[in-house]
Amino acid sequence: MKLVSFVSRGRASWGVVTPEGIRDVGAMPGAAPSLKAALPDLSAPDLSTIAAALDAAPLLPLASVSLLPPIPDPAKILCVGLNYKSHIAETGREAPRYPMLFPRYPDSLVGSGAALVRPSASHNFDFEGELAVVIGKAGRHIAVADALGHVAGYACFNDGSIRDWQRHTTQFLPGKNFAHSGSFGPWLVTADEAGDIGALHLETRLNGEVMQRARLDDLLLPAAELIAYISTMAPLQPGDVIATGTTGGVGLFRDPPVWMKPGDTITVEIERLGTLVNTIVDEEPGVARG
Amino acid sequence: MKLVSFVSRGRASWGVVTPEGIRDVGAMPGAAPSLKAALPDLSAPDLSTIAAALDAAPLLPLASVSLLPPIPDPAKILCVGLNYKSHIAETGREAPRYPMLFPRYPDSLVGSGAALVRPSASHNFDFEGELAVVIGKAGRHIAVADALGHVAGYACFNDGSIRDWQRHTTQFLPGKNFAHSGSFGPWLVTADEAGDIGALHLETRLNGEVMQRARLDDLLLPAAELIAYISTMAPLQPGDVIATGTTGGVGLFRDPPVWMKPGDTITVEIERLGTLVNTIVDEEPGVARG
Repeated sequence: MKLVSFVSRGRASWGVVTPEGIRDVGAMPGAAPSLKAALPDLSAPDLSTIAAALDAAPLLPLASVSLLPPIPDPAKILCVGLNYKSHIAETGREAPRYPMLFPRYPDSLVGSGAALVRPSASHNFDFEGELAVVIGKAGRHIAVADALGHVAGYACFNDGSIRDWQRHTTQFLPGKNFAHSGSFGPWLVTADEAGDIGALHLETRLNGEVMQRARLDDLLLPAAELIAYISTMAPLQPGDVIATGTTGGVGLFRDPPVWMKPGDTITVEIERLGTLVNTIVDEEPGVARG
Repeated sequence: MKLVSFVSRGRASWGVVTPEGIRDVGAMPGAAPSLKAALPDLSAPDLSTIAAALDAAPLLPLASVSLLPPIPDPAKILCVGLNYKSHIAETGREAPRYPMLFPRYPDSLVGSGAALVRPSASHNFDFEGELAVVIGKAGRHIAVADALGHVAGYACFNDGSIRDWQRHTTQFLPGKNFAHSGSFGPWLVTADEAGDIGALHLETRLNGEVMQRARLDDLLLPAAELIAYISTMAPLQPGDVIATGTTGGVGLFRDPPVWMKPGDTITVEIERLGTLVNTIVDEEPGVARG
């Protein structure tokens, strides 16, 4: 099942993508107020409940809505650095024994089809195509063997990065949290439909040219290991997002470096998970200044 | 004015600390649902509105409530590493040109009087007494000269750290986000009442013994500089918290290292801002496991 969050005529809602269009489940009487709130009820085998309700939900043409990140309001978005064997080789760093974790705040992300914003503070705006894992069932101290039972599903993620700000200090946070600098979507594909994640290919394209390509089993620490490590630290909650890291081919390590600029289109595609597409615009000067 | 969030008889609320007790402003008809939601209305000079309403609010004895962090639900909690000249000297690192920013998630923090939890994963549990700045007025690209106009107030903060997990990789996040490993409070003192922050002293005491002591003007990058830097990256919102970094004397750099253990009492006190007191307990085995 493809679960989606969106805005239709100024109203935020969530639903299911079907061949006919989006079923606006959030518009149904008694529906959960957000996809995050609905996740605990959507864990397999309870998908049958929502499947049964689908035909009664209003049908919206996909092109009529503005997609949001599938979970617009996660309590935690944890990103992993240096987690593909090929990307580790590219950076010249040693393979880490533990996941290199940094945060993204929700206001740094947009949905598929929305504009990514190149900030006025820096034009070193890079892409990072990734697999995102969304938690469906809460837990602490989750064992590796149990971890995939806590996953609601998967989505594409673009961990857009302002490289000079990422390197101001040892901590990556500032370069990873510019407003509307990353994206997540187009929707969340439930684990049952995603199938064997390791066998899928990820591809990042800049204006149609392939920049990154990897099989997801090139991950040094796959989703189950990440869930076990993170849940040792703190409880994971429904809607929490783990962006599992990017692979080789980022703009920073090209010669000369490749930066995204206004008018560019950046696409992250993962087989069976869909295509996350964003165009780049410049930050509007003077908007929302304090 | 001293603004506080708390739980009274199972109900979360917020209010004002007075010599007579807590005025439960959140219980008044039409009150904002949280202190975070109330902050935009509390910016000076509008404190007069709340001051006028105080006498009508129910009065609760301070000892009858469980204090929460003054803002239990910030959109962002940004912490600064290496920001006191004396602590920089202690770590042997160079003074950073930019703030070294890492996150804390809200579930890593408790209020004054609540237990801090030493995790089962590690006993390298250290204290970091800090000044926290709470944003009251939203803004982006805030100039240094305007920055203090965006501050609602100040509070004590204990950036409790699991040192070995902090050093698993270059990124500090895991060591700074164990559940209930840090604290924030006891309340938020509004900027008008806090006065000249730089002249205040901070003191951290472990079982009554002074471990850290600093004047707040020993900060390398004071609040206004941090607000300007962070708001270049993303909008700051009412309720956002900036923990400004710790000073010399942490347990890690003592010989031998000093770790907090069950039964210990850790206190962070800043003149005019109050005293943040927590006792240490061990994580209960098997609780909330996935």
